[in-house]
Amino acid sequence: MRITDIIAHKRDGGELSKEELDFFINGYVAGTVTDYQASAWLMAVFLKGMTRQETTNLTLTMAHSGDVLDLSDVLPVSVDKHSSGGVGDKTTLIVLPMVAACGIPVAKMSGRGLGFSGGTLDKLEAIKGYRVTLSMDEFKATVQKHGIVLAGQSGNLAPADGKLYALRDATATVQSLPLIASSIMSKKIAAGAEAIVLDVKVGLGAFMRTIEEAKALATLMVEIGQGAGRRVVALLSDMNQPLGSYVGNALEVEEAIQVLHDGGAPDLREHCIAVAAHMLRLARKNDSPYAMSEGMAEAAGTLKNGRAFAKFREMVAAQGGDVSMVDNPKLLPKANIVQTVTATRSGYVDQLSALSVGVASVDLGAGRDRKEDSIDHAVGLIVHKKVGDSVTAGEPIFTLHANDQHKLEVAQQRLETALVYSEHPTAALPTFYDTIMSD
Amino acid sequence: MRITDIIAHKRDGGELSKEELDFFINGYVAGTVTDYQASAWLMAVFLKGMTRQETTNLTLTMAHSGDVLDLSDVLPVSVDKHSSGGVGDKTTLIVLPMVAACGIPVAKMSGRGLGFSGGTLDKLEAIKGYRVTLSMDEFKATVQKHGIVLAGQSGNLAPADGKLYALRDATATVQSLPLIASSIMSKKIAAGAEAIVLDVKVGLGAFMRTIEEAKALATLMVEIGQGAGRRVVALLSDMNQPLGSYVGNALEVEEAIQVLHDGGAPDLREHCIAVAAHMLRLARKNDSPYAMSEGMAEAAGTLKNGRAFAKFREMVAAQGGDVSMVDNPKLLPKANIVQTVTATRSGYVDQLSALSVGVASVDLGAGRDRKEDSIDHAVGLIVHKKVGDSVTAGEPIFTLHANDQHKLEVAQQRLETALVYSEHPTAALPTFYDTIMSD
Repeated sequence: MRITDIIAHKRDGGELSKEELDFFINGYVAGTVTDYQASAWLMAVFLKGMTRQETTNLTLTMAHSGDVLDLSDVLPVSVDKHSSGGVGDKTTLIVLPMVAACGIPVAKMSGRGLGFSGGTLDKLEAIKGYRVTLSMDEFKATVQKHGIVLAGQSGNLAPADGKLYALRDATATVQSLPLIASSIMSKKIAAGAEAIVLDVKVGLGAFMRTIEEAKALATLMVEIGQGAGRRVVALLSDMNQPLGSYVGNALEVEEAIQVLHDGGAPDLREHCIAVAAHMLRLARKNDSPYAMSEGMAEAAGTLKNGRAFAKFREMVAAQGGDVSMVDNPKLLPKANIVQTVTATRSGYVDQLSALSVGVASVDLGAGRDRKEDSIDHAVGLIVHKKVGDSVTAGEPIFTLHANDQHKLEVAQQRLETALVYSEHPTAALPTFYDTIMSD
Repeated sequence: MRITDIIAHKRDGGELSKEELDFFINGYVAGTVTDYQASAWLMAVFLKGMTRQETTNLTLTMAHSGDVLDLSDVLPVSVDKHSSGGVGDKTTLIVLPMVAACGIPVAKMSGRGLGFSGGTLDKLEAIKGYRVTLSMDEFKATVQKHGIVLAGQSGNLAPADGKLYALRDATATVQSLPLIASSIMSKKIAAGAEAIVLDVKVGLGAFMRTIEEAKALATLMVEIGQGAGRRVVALLSDMNQPLGSYVGNALEVEEAIQVLHDGGAPDLREHCIAVAAHMLRLARKNDSPYAMSEGMAEAAGTLKNGRAFAKFREMVAAQGGDVSMVDNPKLLPKANIVQTVTATRSGYVDQLSALSVGVASVDLGAGRDRKEDSIDHAVGLIVHKKVGDSVTAGEPIFTLHANDQHKLEVAQQRLETALVYSEHPTAALPTFYDTIMSD
């Protein structure tokens, strides 16, 4: 096989075989395929697309380009979740303890945030002492003992994906469905997931702007999962406005704890109950009919009876975190400046831009523009109104938590156009738009 | 301007502005645009194409990426020719002296061969002592004194093209009309050409397999020339079978000398007369109507009256070549083994594959597979029959000149399928298929 023949095959719209994909991707990881050959190939994939079979093969090739975790010695079934990224998405912090509290052990590897999209590891590190870096032995021992572990990536998972992703970013080839789908799914498969709940965000604060795009991506990922013998559910959830009310690392931990005490923003709580119910369904491989309502009731019950919170507390303690911050969120890192922005007029909230809120949070220092940037765990903002809510002039709409006057002003300016009012009553946004299942 | 935005603009089928092209191409030469970004862009250009205006701008940007020669101090008008490459194409060796013999000074920079396609410099070096490497001062002084100079590239001409060409070769992005056209035209413009005769080969031994493809390329190059203020003619000439009868470096010099003595293969002589007549027309910027028949008669006259041969001899002497080899071609490098292949049956020649003949010549050692390979000037082959000729079983069809028994056998085997016979009379192939002019 010749590298240029494989590039030409895709350039001409052909379907690459498993052998061609193996040769190309493994060559790229080994260094025999150069960056410039990989980027020409990426552009050809971007413009010519890939079939479902091709995308599945690409996913499996990338998944097997490094370590592939086997958690079967510590988990009866490895159930994972993935969010395509958004603003205010602290779902993992809530859902993992919920599922664990239902008796399903969960061992999850998460990532950091980039741009306006937050990351679970950054949020966890708002808790003093929380160790996100665990050895594989520690990772397994923790879930074995506590039924829950939540840490950063361990091992060399899907290095082909890491290398290709960096290249896509520099060559305008990010927004390609087969490349996005295979990137996400290869990491999940390499991390040992047998069952996966995919939370595909859709809206102005998400990679996928329209329901059609999100549905296409979700369907493709479910198909890849089927092809790879995994049970997969994809939920299309709203990211036109932030999820919940708190945005920023310590602030999101605080809201997660509110939900774990059966409080917090209703949309966030509803979202977490659904994700947890789907994880329970997949993990249990039910032979008999499964009523979603029962799964949701079981998941919701863990919030009411305190068992989800107890699991969260147990996890923080197990990973070296300061549980006093969990018991009393006032001890979480606090910003020096707290400033409230009030409504300039009365009416109804027609739009609340997740993108503007997310970027304002980066303005304040809660996120990073580049991987190497450091972040401030204390800063962020609280959103007091969501789409569909009525507003009276003078009411608080945002509370900003800042550690720098200049950054505060930049964020305030950013937020000036974040909220669009209507004179007439507006409808709340749905939490979910669709559900796509592999079986 | 951002590099990824320019890639994305082309990826989405947009027309790049002169500023975007300047930024990207100059950045690539300077190293701020990486190889992998350039190759993603090349694949986007390959798949999305370029408008005429864009291709013209790309050509000018590449032409000005390094030195741009100004020959106006030594030439009244700089007229150049370019062949898209083929088998047995020794046109430059014949046409340059013809044009010079008509009183039009010519100063040409040529290249080396690669693959089955020969190169003028390699042929010239079959003449002992011929110096293809001249300083710019020598180059200019030679044409000023003798009215003719033919050497290798001097100066740093169109480095963007050189860099992009190497990348295209490794990324399956060679066969793109705007990229081919801008590559050829940028080098001609950088070499100072004001008027250009383009010899676009078409057929199974050429880059362009069909007349339609060749015409599209020729038209685009003429349009680029127009846009850049150059006078351009493109001739579509046959490359299904070799041009003339001799293939290999010393052998081609020998046939060129035959033509300069008004002999040689009729198709080659006809080809050279037409190319020379077009060069004369362009060089003279006639205000009054120009009869091609008169230009062709003038060009043909230089073969009959010996002035073209005298110019060739003068050029060889001026560049240090051994003129005794010109006066007596038997002194040119000779191969040790000369073997004749005869016809296995009687009939008519229906096809004579330029590609097979060219590759057989490389098999013998006359050409190179990679730039760094060395070549043997003595080896090659003579083709005794062309398409349309009648053949009697036992008549010679090829004479192979070899210096290695094993290579000879490989070439012989290669040639077994080069010639296709017909029972019925076949038509000779035309020398030219079309002519495309800028004015």
